[in-house]
Amino acid sequence: MKIMDIFGALKKDMDFIEQQLYRSIDGDDGILSETSLHLLKAGGKRLRPVFVLLGGKFGNYDLQQLQYIAVPLELIHSASLVHDDVIDDAETRRGKPTVKSKWDNRIAMYTGDYIYAKALMQVTQLGNPYIHRTLAKAMVQMSIGEMEQIRDFFNTEQSVRDYLLRIRRKTALLIAISCQLGAMAAEAPDKVNLLLYRYGYNVGMAFQIRDDLLDLFGTEKVIGKPPGSDMRQGNITLPVLYALQEPELREPLLREIRGIQAGDGSGDVSRAIEMIRTSPGIRRAEELADRFIRKALDALSELPDNKSRAHLQEIAHFVNKRSY
Amino acid sequence: MKIMDIFGALKKDMDFIEQQLYRSIDGDDGILSETSLHLLKAGGKRLRPVFVLLGGKFGNYDLQQLQYIAVPLELIHSASLVHDDVIDDAETRRGKPTVKSKWDNRIAMYTGDYIYAKALMQVTQLGNPYIHRTLAKAMVQMSIGEMEQIRDFFNTEQSVRDYLLRIRRKTALLIAISCQLGAMAAEAPDKVNLLLYRYGYNVGMAFQIRDDLLDLFGTEKVIGKPPGSDMRQGNITLPVLYALQEPELREPLLREIRGIQAGDGSGDVSRAIEMIRTSPGIRRAEELADRFIRKALDALSELPDNKSRAHLQEIAHFVNKRSY
Repeated sequence: MKIMDIFGALKKDMDFIEQQLYRSIDGDDGILSETSLHLLKAGGKRLRPVFVLLGGKFGNYDLQQLQYIAVPLELIHSASLVHDDVIDDAETRRGKPTVKSKWDNRIAMYTGDYIYAKALMQVTQLGNPYIHRTLAKAMVQMSIGEMEQIRDFFNTEQSVRDYLLRIRRKTALLIAISCQLGAMAAEAPDKVNLLLYRYGYNVGMAFQIRDDLLDLFGTEKVIGKPPGSDMRQGNITLPVLYALQEPELREPLLREIRGIQAGDGSGDVSRAIEMIRTSPGIRRAEELADRFIRKALDALSELPDNKSRAHLQEIAHFVNKRSY
Repeated sequence: MKIMDIFGALKKDMDFIEQQLYRSIDGDDGILSETSLHLLKAGGKRLRPVFVLLGGKFGNYDLQQLQYIAVPLELIHSASLVHDDVIDDAETRRGKPTVKSKWDNRIAMYTGDYIYAKALMQVTQLGNPYIHRTLAKAMVQMSIGEMEQIRDFFNTEQSVRDYLLRIRRKTALLIAISCQLGAMAAEAPDKVNLLLYRYGYNVGMAFQIRDDLLDLFGTEKVIGKPPGSDMRQGNITLPVLYALQEPELREPLLREIRGIQAGDGSGDVSRAIEMIRTSPGIRRAEELADRFIRKALDALSELPDNKSRAHLQEIAHFVNKRSY
C-alpha cells in the first residue's frame, strides 16, 4: 500500500473536511478571513484530520461528528504555525509567502488569535467537555513548548531530554490527541483510544525529529522554506545535540554556532551544517526516530486488525522515510 | 451607595476569584507562569468578574460554579491586553511595565496564547456548551475588532459607525456576556439573561468611549500609561471623529494628524489634543456615552429590584464618571 492509496480511500471525506476548513474561517468581513484563507490554502498535509478520520474508523464512524474534531485540530495547528512564523521571522512556509511577510507581524498575530477562536467555535458543536478540555490542555502545552524553544535558542548546554520534552509539547501531543479524539468521538472502547494516543504520540515524536533533519538537509523545493532555518535562528535540534557530544567535533561546532549567533541571522550556516552532516549525529537521530516508530507500530499491533490500522502503519513508515 | 461599597459587599467572593485567577495560570514550570502572573498582578478593576458575580445573584448564586466563568473572562481580557501591548508597542500599562517591555514581543505573544488556552481549560469545568460557544464567539469578535483597529489606524475617513462597531467587538461584547453568563450559569430566567446582556453591552460601549476620552485628557498617574497614546499610534477615537466634523477645525486637525503619522510615533501630539479638547467633540462624545448609560439603566429597570440591581446601577454611574 502506498501513502497515496490511503488518501485515495479517504479522498471524498477529506474533500469534505477541506471545504469545512475553508467555511470555518469564512463569513466575517475583512482581512482576517483573507489572511486565514491564504494560510489554509498554502496547503499542508492535513495529517491531523487524516488521523482523526482513521481514528474514527475504530468506532461508529460519523463524518458529521468527526468534522468538529478534524477541523479544529487543523485550525489549531495552522494558528500555531502563523504565530511561529512571527517568531521565526519566516518569509516563506510550504513554498508560499507567510502571512507575516505578505501582510505584517501584527496581522499575523491576530490571524492566529482569530483562527484559535474559530477552532473553539467548531469544537463547541460537540457537547463533549472532555474533548474541549483535551484540546485546551494541548493548546496550553503547545504554547509552553513554543516558549521553551525561544528560551533555548542557541543554548548548546541543553540536554537531549530538554529537546524531547519540547517536541513532545510542540508537536507530538497534538498528533496524539488527533488519533485519540477521533476514536473517542466515534465511541470506540477506552483501550482503543489509549492505544491510538500512544501511536500518535510516538509518530509525532518521529515526525518532528525527521522534520528537524529535513531542515538541515532538505532542499528549498522539498521543505518549502530555505534549509538551515533552525540553525540560523538558534533552534538547536537533535542531530546538533548529538554532534555536540562528539569530542573532536564539539569545540569547532560550538565556535560555528557562536559565530551564527553573533551574526544575528545573517551568518553562514553552511560550515556548521557540513560538520553535522558528516557526524554520527545524523545516524543517531535517525535511530531515535526509528525507535519511536517501532513504539508506534507496537501500539498498533494491539489494535483490531482492520483497514484503518493498515493505513496507520503505512503513515508511520511514510513519516519515517521523509526524503532529503 | 459608593462604588467601594459594592466591592465591599463582594469582597470575600472577589478575593476567592483573585486567588483562583492566580492558581489558573500557575503550575507549569517556567517563564509563562511568571509573565502571566506579572500581568495579572499588575492589577485591573476585575470588572468582568464583578459582573459575573452580580449576574449570578439573579439566580441560584453558586460561587464554585461562577468561578469557571469569572476566571476565564478575566483571563481572556488579560490575554487580549498583552497582545494589544505588542501591537501598541506599549511600555507601561496600569503604571507597570508591560510583558513586552519587561521581556519581549515574542514572549508577550506566547503569554497571550498561554492565557487564552488556560481560560478555555477553566471554562471546560462547566459542562455547558452554550457558554463555551458564547466565549469562543466573543474571542472571534475581539480579534476582528483588534484587526479593524489596526486597519483603521490614521484613517480619518472612517465613520462614527465604524468606530462604534469596532468598540462593540473590542470591548462591549465581552462585558455583555460577563453579565449574561453569570446569570445563565445561575439558571436565571432567559428574560433576565437577555436584559443583563443588554445592560452589559451598553455599559461596555460607554466604558470604551470614556476610556478613549481618558486617553486624550487623563494624567499618566490616573490612566497608568502616557496620555495621548491613541493619538500617537493613529487610533482615531470618537472625540477625534466628532472634532473632524467641525468645518473650521477639520483642515488644521487633519494636518496635525498627518504630521503625527509622518513622525512615526515620535511626533508631538499636544497641539492635536489641544484642538480636540477645545472642540465640541468632547461634549458630543460624552453625550453619546450618557445615552449608552441611559440604555443600560433602562435595561436594569426591567429587572427584579434587588441589591445586585442597585450595584449594577451604581457601576453604570461610576463608569460614566471616570474622572480626567
